[in-house]
Amino acid sequence: MEVPRLGKPADAASVDDAFHVFDTTLRDGAQREGINLTVADKVAIARHLDSFGVGFIEGGWPGANPRDTEFFARAQQEITFRHAQLVAFGATRRPGAKAADDPQVRALLESGAPVVCLVAKAHDRHVELALRTTLEENLEMVRDTVSFLREQGRRVFVDCEHFFDGYRANPAYAKSVVRTASKAGADVVVLCDTNGGMLPAQIQAVVSTVIADTGARLGIHAQDDTGCAVANTLAAVDAGATHVQCTANGYGERVGNANLFPVVAALELKYGKSVLPEGALAEMTRISHAIAEVVNLTPSTHQPYVGVSAFAHKAGLHASAIKVDPDLYQHIAPEQVGNTMRMLVSDMAGRASIELKSKELGVELGGDRALIGRVVQRVKERELAGYTYEAADASFELLLRAEAEGRPRRYLRIESWRAITEDRPDGTHANETTVKLWAKGERIVATADGNGPVNALDRALRRALEGPYPELAKMELVDYTVRILAGEHTTESRTRVLISTADSTSAWTTVGVADNIITASLQALQDAYSYGLLRAGIEPEPEPAH
Amino acid sequence: MEVPRLGKPADAASVDDAFHVFDTTLRDGAQREGINLTVADKVAIARHLDSFGVGFIEGGWPGANPRDTEFFARAQQEITFRHAQLVAFGATRRPGAKAADDPQVRALLESGAPVVCLVAKAHDRHVELALRTTLEENLEMVRDTVSFLREQGRRVFVDCEHFFDGYRANPAYAKSVVRTASKAGADVVVLCDTNGGMLPAQIQAVVSTVIADTGARLGIHAQDDTGCAVANTLAAVDAGATHVQCTANGYGERVGNANLFPVVAALELKYGKSVLPEGALAEMTRISHAIAEVVNLTPSTHQPYVGVSAFAHKAGLHASAIKVDPDLYQHIAPEQVGNTMRMLVSDMAGRASIELKSKELGVELGGDRALIGRVVQRVKERELAGYTYEAADASFELLLRAEAEGRPRRYLRIESWRAITEDRPDGTHANETTVKLWAKGERIVATADGNGPVNALDRALRRALEGPYPELAKMELVDYTVRILAGEHTTESRTRVLISTADSTSAWTTVGVADNIITASLQALQDAYSYGLLRAGIEPEPEPAH
Repeated sequence: MEVPRLGKPADAASVDDAFHVFDTTLRDGAQREGINLTVADKVAIARHLDSFGVGFIEGGWPGANPRDTEFFARAQQEITFRHAQLVAFGATRRPGAKAADDPQVRALLESGAPVVCLVAKAHDRHVELALRTTLEENLEMVRDTVSFLREQGRRVFVDCEHFFDGYRANPAYAKSVVRTASKAGADVVVLCDTNGGMLPAQIQAVVSTVIADTGARLGIHAQDDTGCAVANTLAAVDAGATHVQCTANGYGERVGNANLFPVVAALELKYGKSVLPEGALAEMTRISHAIAEVVNLTPSTHQPYVGVSAFAHKAGLHASAIKVDPDLYQHIAPEQVGNTMRMLVSDMAGRASIELKSKELGVELGGDRALIGRVVQRVKERELAGYTYEAADASFELLLRAEAEGRPRRYLRIESWRAITEDRPDGTHANETTVKLWAKGERIVATADGNGPVNALDRALRRALEGPYPELAKMELVDYTVRILAGEHTTESRTRVLISTADSTSAWTTVGVADNIITASLQALQDAYSYGLLRAGIEPEPEPAH
Repeated sequence: MEVPRLGKPADAASVDDAFHVFDTTLRDGAQREGINLTVADKVAIARHLDSFGVGFIEGGWPGANPRDTEFFARAQQEITFRHAQLVAFGATRRPGAKAADDPQVRALLESGAPVVCLVAKAHDRHVELALRTTLEENLEMVRDTVSFLREQGRRVFVDCEHFFDGYRANPAYAKSVVRTASKAGADVVVLCDTNGGMLPAQIQAVVSTVIADTGARLGIHAQDDTGCAVANTLAAVDAGATHVQCTANGYGERVGNANLFPVVAALELKYGKSVLPEGALAEMTRISHAIAEVVNLTPSTHQPYVGVSAFAHKAGLHASAIKVDPDLYQHIAPEQVGNTMRMLVSDMAGRASIELKSKELGVELGGDRALIGRVVQRVKERELAGYTYEAADASFELLLRAEAEGRPRRYLRIESWRAITEDRPDGTHANETTVKLWAKGERIVATADGNGPVNALDRALRRALEGPYPELAKMELVDYTVRILAGEHTTESRTRVLISTADSTSAWTTVGVADNIITASLQALQDAYSYGLLRAGIEPEPEPAH
């Protein structure tokens, strides 16, 4: 059988074969609770991974899963790989049969993938308990399946499932599986910490010994159940492994797999190893977020290197030091991984962070010490009252501009409003809100209902403003959170609302604080509209004469 | 100056002093983007950490931040520590002054904390650049400040900021800071990876050398910028560190700090070290989630050990294997850390935990499989609708009793209600709520105002019920949180309210979910009153005839 060119030809690899970055987002990553990938999703993710420059993309288990079979068919037609080779995952042949006759093995060939990654048992007890065969037959299954696939022109990697627990139980047998796979022609034997219970020191010791005792080329597949998957992967590399299996954003069964991004970043930036094509690392933040979009999960804000908070600085102490030297609180330049430094404004912040933040927002304070002092003072007062600006940068920018320009940007003036929530005899309830406001010299009264008082308020405001500000129709509320700020008697506490709004190109967050949720929401909505109109280049209302 | 007993006396520690679990959630954890702790939040978190059994709780920087100063004052009055000692964080004295005269150092004494953790510079360049003093004067600042605090009867730890970068730049100077602190009387010198750029192998090498060269007792403070903070902490322990600084859920600046939970779980379960009081580890999942509630962040579903997905198994290969042997895909028994295995194809785990929980609450289900099945079903339906019973155990007990007893415990029946919020010409606003209800056969109409619609509702209900149920006067609302459950269009989302209520002897939490905050609050308030009356031994209303 001829090997189709699915994925990039091995002889044209942009990163040499001496070290493998192997991604298994499409197979093992898809095991994450909450992820359910369509074939189109898989194709989209494969494109992102290829453009990022991983060497191998494990696409799934053809034959075991119709969606995976379809993925290999479509990937062949739809993707022109620039860097990666596709890998089909499958198991060694069944006990007592021949690999050549095993339909599951044939499905691996029929997928057309130039590389096959076979899973094999390496733990003696599991061979007996789960495969229900002898230890010798398990070795024979490895030997036969690897040899057959090699004869058919495929490159073969072997994943040794439960290797580390197996090694603890019976090191001689675990190593014999490695030797058998390697002798049969597997290019890499991958040691898997399947239940994720290992720590780096253990991984390093076992990988060192297995390399010394078998001479095989080894890879590592780590799960994050101890919170050490990245470190476990690097520990294996320290011990001589030259193939790392990871998933984008660490997606995977239970806690997840070793996260591709911190692993490759460490290898490139800390080890000085070129494991990705030139320039790829600077795309890492974008790729991470793009894949999160495809799987429909919010990108983790605190993910190493690529999270929006990864280079965000809050403390006043840090901010003033960072003005002197960014390296003090940053282990790398965020631009190296396509991320950016962000200064968070909070009551821990001082003048330095206000200046840096203003520069980031493009509002020129011109080193005006009195003005900066007023802004710092205003932020402290407002945060004491319960506002928070580190999340609400649009409200912060409005505050900053109001101080810098001497008056707030105002697009509307609320005259009065009223919200009624009332239950109906059938157990449902009605929410009705009326607003009376002035905009562009006009007095407008609008009423709307909604499925809660805040929703009714948002709808009434939009109804009132659709004439004077048609731009608002393009803006949509995308997130809404409420925090009750504890008080002496708790239902008397203050309420803080954060609202995120987006148009087709960007998103911004605003804040409101009041003793009730409706007034707080009204403030945050007003800021949201004002900021959106400001960005759209709309002129504010002139200041009223009185 | 006498040392007040703030926190547990050192001589009665339940875990010996040979190994320190030091928590800095309240100081370094509070640096996380999105966290903004009130003093009440800090007190609540300190209680959780103490009940978990950490040895040291760093409460903040008294003198630098008014909220932190207030925290130490309130903690002294409000908390009876069972395990932990409170730690005040601060800097070494200013250059050219005396520690005894430094107001910042005096604020540490005045906090009353029995332990002080001083931050010192250990990187030569930072001494010159940030402190603007000589290397020798920096050592003198360490020596003088440590000695002075020791003379005043405080235990002293010293955090060496930027230690690892400093060690790379000038190992001799970095070590001289360690030696100076140790000789001056610091019990532990903590090596900090302040910008979080280190990997485990580097940490291990440096900690080993510093211990060998200085003989000081060392601690480790790791940040998670490389995704290795847990592993870095363990690497330091491997090298001989006997003090680990962590934060709950890994909260902290940028990516975060070393996560307390996987660190202590590894020490207890993998190293076999007793670092927590007996039985504490089984509370870990609950403590982790409770602290997330206080800081108002959704608990991370994929956090090692404590995430709801940490022991969740998707159907397929793993699920069927797990039926044979759970160890195949679980590195520990989830119950060891208070978590549960979740099989997405079976309600077995659900039944078991319902039975255990019922036993805990003293509600006898008598092994009635049909009844248990109904409770499991009801909890699943309600959780799908947005309810959460993990936090709201009083609402869960009411649900359980309703199923076991065939009808809900009902103390009142709402006929109708109406809430109006309206702004006044002076910019303030009015909230007025009217409830019409039946209690003890009587129809009562009551109206109240409040400073928000929910407060007005609570007051109207209490006014209506003060005749039939005078017991309610003894119950007070002590906490109130709101979470918006994401929907398609965001102000149209569902709202979840959790209310904590206390009387003189205990506290309980109830939940309500609806498409608006008022209806959700009404549900939670009704549950809160019902549970309080149930506990007070008051008989419920007889079921109405119709």
